[in-house]
Amino acid sequence: MDFQLSPRAQELRERLRRFVREEIEPLEPLLAERRRREGHGADWTRWTPAPETEALKAKAREQGLWNLFLPDAQLATGLSHVEYAPLAEEMGRSPLAPEIFNCNAPDTGNMEVLWKYGSPEQKARWLTPLLAGEIRSAFCMTEPEVASSDATNMRATAIADGDEIVINGRKWWSTGIGHPRCAFVIFMGLSDPGAPRHSQHSMVLVPLDTPGVKIERMLTVFNDYDEPYGHGEVSFSNVRVPGTNLIKGLGRGFEIAQGRLGPGRIHHCMRCIGAAERALELMIRRGLSREAFGKPLLQLDGNRERIADLRLAIDQARLLTLYAAWKIDQVGALKALTEISAIKLAAPLALQRVVDEAIQMFGGAGVSEDTPLAAMYANARVMRLADGPDAVHRAMIARVELGKYAPPRHKEPA
Amino acid sequence: MDFQLSPRAQELRERLRRFVREEIEPLEPLLAERRRREGHGADWTRWTPAPETEALKAKAREQGLWNLFLPDAQLATGLSHVEYAPLAEEMGRSPLAPEIFNCNAPDTGNMEVLWKYGSPEQKARWLTPLLAGEIRSAFCMTEPEVASSDATNMRATAIADGDEIVINGRKWWSTGIGHPRCAFVIFMGLSDPGAPRHSQHSMVLVPLDTPGVKIERMLTVFNDYDEPYGHGEVSFSNVRVPGTNLIKGLGRGFEIAQGRLGPGRIHHCMRCIGAAERALELMIRRGLSREAFGKPLLQLDGNRERIADLRLAIDQARLLTLYAAWKIDQVGALKALTEISAIKLAAPLALQRVVDEAIQMFGGAGVSEDTPLAAMYANARVMRLADGPDAVHRAMIARVELGKYAPPRHKEPA
Amino acid sequence: MDFQLSPRAQELRERLRRFVREEIEPLEPLLAERRRREGHGADWTRWTPAPETEALKAKAREQGLWNLFLPDAQLATGLSHVEYAPLAEEMGRSPLAPEIFNCNAPDTGNMEVLWKYGSPEQKARWLTPLLAGEIRSAFCMTEPEVASSDATNMRATAIADGDEIVINGRKWWSTGIGHPRCAFVIFMGLSDPGAPRHSQHSMVLVPLDTPGVKIERMLTVFNDYDEPYGHGEVSFSNVRVPGTNLIKGLGRGFEIAQGRLGPGRIHHCMRCIGAAERALELMIRRGLSREAFGKPLLQLDGNRERIADLRLAIDQARLLTLYAAWKIDQVGALKALTEISAIKLAAPLALQRVVDEAIQMFGGAGVSEDTPLAAMYANARVMRLADGPDAVHRAMIARVELGKYAPPRHKEPA
Amino acid sequence: MDFQLSPRAQELRERLRRFVREEIEPLEPLLAERRRREGHGADWTRWTPAPETEALKAKAREQGLWNLFLPDAQLATGLSHVEYAPLAEEMGRSPLAPEIFNCNAPDTGNMEVLWKYGSPEQKARWLTPLLAGEIRSAFCMTEPEVASSDATNMRATAIADGDEIVINGRKWWSTGIGHPRCAFVIFMGLSDPGAPRHSQHSMVLVPLDTPGVKIERMLTVFNDYDEPYGHGEVSFSNVRVPGTNLIKGLGRGFEIAQGRLGPGRIHHCMRCIGAAERALELMIRRGLSREAFGKPLLQLDGNRERIADLRLAIDQARLLTLYAAWKIDQVGALKALTEISAIKLAAPLALQRVVDEAIQMFGGAGVSEDTPLAAMYANARVMRLADGPDAVHRAMIARVELGKYAPPRHKEPA
Repeated sequence: MDFQLSPRAQELRERLRRFVREEIEPLEPLLAERRRREGHGADWTRWTPAPETEALKAKAREQGLWNLFLPDAQLATGLSHVEYAPLAEEMGRSPLAPEIFNCNAPDTGNMEVLWKYGSPEQKARWLTPLLAGEIRSAFCMTEPEVASSDATNMRATAIADGDEIVINGRKWWSTGIGHPRCAFVIFMGLSDPGAPRHSQHSMVLVPLDTPGVKIERMLTVFNDYDEPYGHGEVSFSNVRVPGTNLIKGLGRGFEIAQGRLGPGRIHHCMRCIGAAERALELMIRRGLSREAFGKPLLQLDGNRERIADLRLAIDQARLLTLYAAWKIDQVGALKALTEISAIKLAAPLALQRVVDEAIQMFGGAGVSEDTPLAAMYANARVMRLADGPDAVHRAMIARVELGKYAPPRHKEPA
Repeated sequence: MDFQLSPRAQELRERLRRFVREEIEPLEPLLAERRRREGHGADWTRWTPAPETEALKAKAREQGLWNLFLPDAQLATGLSHVEYAPLAEEMGRSPLAPEIFNCNAPDTGNMEVLWKYGSPEQKARWLTPLLAGEIRSAFCMTEPEVASSDATNMRATAIADGDEIVINGRKWWSTGIGHPRCAFVIFMGLSDPGAPRHSQHSMVLVPLDTPGVKIERMLTVFNDYDEPYGHGEVSFSNVRVPGTNLIKGLGRGFEIAQGRLGPGRIHHCMRCIGAAERALELMIRRGLSREAFGKPLLQLDGNRERIADLRLAIDQARLLTLYAAWKIDQVGALKALTEISAIKLAAPLALQRVVDEAIQMFGGAGVSEDTPLAAMYANARVMRLADGPDAVHRAMIARVELGKYAPPRHKEPA
Repeated sequence: MDFQLSPRAQELRERLRRFVREEIEPLEPLLAERRRREGHGADWTRWTPAPETEALKAKAREQGLWNLFLPDAQLATGLSHVEYAPLAEEMGRSPLAPEIFNCNAPDTGNMEVLWKYGSPEQKARWLTPLLAGEIRSAFCMTEPEVASSDATNMRATAIADGDEIVINGRKWWSTGIGHPRCAFVIFMGLSDPGAPRHSQHSMVLVPLDTPGVKIERMLTVFNDYDEPYGHGEVSFSNVRVPGTNLIKGLGRGFEIAQGRLGPGRIHHCMRCIGAAERALELMIRRGLSREAFGKPLLQLDGNRERIADLRLAIDQARLLTLYAAWKIDQVGALKALTEISAIKLAAPLALQRVVDEAIQMFGGAGVSEDTPLAAMYANARVMRLADGPDAVHRAMIARVELGKYAPPRHKEPA
Repeated sequence: MDFQLSPRAQELRERLRRFVREEIEPLEPLLAERRRREGHGADWTRWTPAPETEALKAKAREQGLWNLFLPDAQLATGLSHVEYAPLAEEMGRSPLAPEIFNCNAPDTGNMEVLWKYGSPEQKARWLTPLLAGEIRSAFCMTEPEVASSDATNMRATAIADGDEIVINGRKWWSTGIGHPRCAFVIFMGLSDPGAPRHSQHSMVLVPLDTPGVKIERMLTVFNDYDEPYGHGEVSFSNVRVPGTNLIKGLGRGFEIAQGRLGPGRIHHCMRCIGAAERALELMIRRGLSREAFGKPLLQLDGNRERIADLRLAIDQARLLTLYAAWKIDQVGALKALTEISAIKLAAPLALQRVVDEAIQMFGGAGVSEDTPLAAMYANARVMRLADGPDAVHRAMIARVELGKYAPPRHKEPA
């Protein structure tokens, strides 16, 4: 294992670090305040991006802090996952940051899908403007009616009909679909229930303005609509797209999903670690500056032990994430599924724990709008579900572990 | 110890149970939906109570399900704390319920203060309409600038000036202050910094429309304003009230606070247990009805073990709460401080754990507006801070435990 | 629920408390030292009871502190389980204590079996001398070759052959079988594999000197033989006893086992709580008397928080145990299986946690022969397995919980 | 960070792995059985090494699997700490292994002290025979009367008197002192209470046969004397050794201790990970082969989740250990104190947790002499105290973390 950063990655990290702290973090309270005062809540048709983030995006792009996630030296900087890890960690400090560097989910995952599996026409039409930050996209996989932790539960359909694909079904947690520039979704649906288990589904590119696509509502996450991105519930009623909108071909959906989820999960984890670092920093600064019973809070009772335990949790999560990143770099995401599951389990739990303790140090301020902690707490909680709940990752780790001893008796969750 | 319910309490419990489940719980999604569509967010001047809850309040009062918290046989039903415990537990199932039975914080605490310590005039003016549910009130103790876990940090002042009390300072987390019928606050402030440590503070009744009282803003709790109650940040600038608004006299603030906080904390804990029961119920129903990998979720991996551990946590929290209630009934709240601290530590932690697991069973729905879990999760988190953070309660328990062995070396948090 | 102690139970508790602290605890280091110097290790044929414990047994019996576990007013004091709970808790302080009051496992369980299910002849021959403390006994249920958490795995047989029962098989963890006065065992074996699942097994009284009974070896528990009691591995080869040695009749083994295990488990839990109290006491005394970095250890870092959390864990375990005891008193052990499982899960975990922290406060002394903590730590660990591992109790609690919502789909562990 | 193994280290690892599994592990039950039958308990004067381990030592030395811990290319193989880590992990599988490769504590630590700080004469007399495995040694630092977590508590003295050093005091937990070939101890004592805090102590080489050195007793660790090594309590009464027996000079004790403890702690952690791997392996094999309720134990309830969580805990502990090893290699032990504290906290806790769960899967066999788990459980518990209790390591981590924000207000534990 070699987690050493290249000089290039170190240089990027330094610049990114300053950019996040000096340009993005100060923007947070301003945008939050504005949204509380002027936000449009459930009415996503009125959502607009903040001009300040648009300006920072331009600035980031100018400075080459752009599309860093994409391991392609032509289209982007061509960083390895190990090199990208500390950059994503820095981005994790602020919920505003990933988009400003064009490194936000689900666009990153969609860009990777198009980059890896898209036809030249698909790339030209969708990948190029995504990489330029000109359009946004969503990913429609999870469904409201079934347990999506088992992907074979999926009910929505994408059926070939002559030169077209006909799409029906209902999806939710389609993140980003409320953005005014969201141009298309990647839709995953059942194409052939009679095919082998992992060849039944397909992925299709669906422009958002295709007839039959309807955003039914935006979902709240702990009361937050995440404006202007949003998490939509979307219905598809006899939606027809040309067969050229299929990604890779009928029945390739699972394969693409696996390739998509690996890096996506690891990006989430890297960002979790950055968020945890920031929460710990806030906690310590608060604990050093507030006093009770004549001492700084950090001198009271078990508070310093908590700091030690949290430092340990963060460092262990980071090392495991670097290890998974290194594994992806060495053998590809499909052969690093266990390592990815391990970190997908560990990093959000570490973040949840750090934020929980940080809130405790802040008291009421920690659950209010006055600190980033409340949003981090909600995010940490969501991270234990997004891209597979803890249970699915535990099952994967156990399956691989037991597989060392005995042939598996039956198929289990991927 | 005797936790046996009287027949009267059992009968009340049965009626209350049905009322909560049949009348209140079905109202939740309707009101939540309305608030998402028509809510006024930060602009509390436009907040109004829902007509449906007003109607239910009238109905509850008619049925004698009213003011059950007050251990006074004339003014209320005169239940003991042990008798009230299971009733409060039932109310804990729904965030709407406590108000409907006129048993919601902070009004209950304020009514208790007036009932125990108020002058006849104070009772006539403030307690009677509170008991009738005609007005609402707030409690102004916590301050933004200092660690309020140490009450001696308090900076706001309530200074005697002739026949008047002059009030200055800034408070926050003044719950209920946004309610259109909020008529007054109980303000706690420093009267005499030279007095003995626990005789420096006073409590004063301050009509909300007194000149110099200004609601600066409403605070969010995980993005929620808790409309139409709200949690206010309030400034007091040379606010003058007549000396007859003092409760019990100058320097009696601490004594009253202790008497107020005991029952208030135990009510919180009882409600936590009811909320935890509901979350567990939701979790089990979901786990029995959703399938993945060909089985109900509850048949997968460790889910049934989780149910067992959560059942245990709830039952242990309930027994401890009953024990603390019994102790208050026997010796009064001031002599049951450890027992109250114990349950204030245990019950919110149990609730937080149950809700966290329930969310995990629900997936995305658990963090959305579609289940009560997201609100419960926020509430559980707040409960670990409200009325004293965990650390203060741990310190109290430890202090009493060590006091069995050695004289305390120095004073610690109360 | 009513956990109030009767005056009689209070009086017994006071006397027992003094007896344990003044007579028994001081004996511990003396006997431990003697055993280290003169112990016979694996050679159980040379084991003998200490004269000091024999003397204390006589004294305890004289003082009426004898057979307190038995809810029979003629044969014993006739205490309820709620009344016995605090007495057993006191006995839990010292591993020497239960025997001295003739309240030690497995003799208590065997006495209860004989008392509840024994014929008059069986009672005369076995129960009377057991109650007098003249003989000892063992219980042969667990087997080395199968997972005994599933009682239907049992392979040993007890087959009727004319007027006799023929016994074959191998048992282990037959506690007490090494005692020089151990006179008989209660053997549980398969009588009829074709009978309904819970009517296949029988319990038989087998004098230890019956031909074919062979103690193969004594097992160590964390290096300790528990001399002069011991935990034996025993083989039975064509052992023949008269049919009158059957308890209640063929196929009644399961029923008796359930009746036996309930009170036995609750006794274990009561003693766990007493042991935990003693460990906490030792921990606090050490933490107050030793200094590091210029302060008593208890003033350092999180040590006082630990005390608070442990106090909470003990109190919650005690209340749950009292609740289970009360339930047994009300409806009998067979209808209190969940409550018994709950406490069997909670109490040993609480003890393990308390002892673990106490050891940490003692440093090396905590794992050595100089404190009772090492033995308590071993005992706590064993308690999580004895009379059913944690997993069996979690399964029972979950089964009952889920049974409130849906009919069970298949049978699970009892 | 680069944790990649060199080809040489990989080759050594493969050979060591086979040696441990094929030669050492099979020996364990044989030696344990012999010790139970023929052991001498407290009478350490009769302890002797097993001929089988002596034979394996010769074989290991022949094969170059010898002194691998020493980063010296002349005297040993010259492996880095990163290279040694996986070798120590393999040794951790068996309590017999470290000695067989001449890599056991405390001899390794003593060899490192002599290698780093010894005079040529000291090396010739003590290091050479230690490296050859011809003699054994002990380390006398911890004292029975004071909290040794604070090294400045130390009371024993090493006073210069002309050309001699006069030694007085009482030490305990002097591991290895019972070995018949134990030739000397490294004694740490107070030389000058008036010197600066970290220059008051000295380390002195004391031949075990020097007049005035008396082994008072051997201590048990969970009932085990660890024959033929043992953990002694030793008194020193006016023991006189020549001044040339001083290591580095008067007042250099602390400095040497820090240099000694770093690598020693990391060796412990590496071995903990190997032990944890073995416990997990045993747990899985048991869980796959035993059945209850018609299924392998591993198919029941949360057992597979446990496997996942334990795999995660082990992998995280290993990565952190490799990171600390890499840090030592880069900047030396004195500058890697935090990293060493982190792993000293994490690895024993991981081991304790894995072994605890493994025992649970084994039932009674897990606490008996029939598996290595009981010994591992005792060892894991001791590891949380040896070379500094958890609390000291938490304090160190917290101190460094807080030091990033503010100058420390007062000195804390090292």
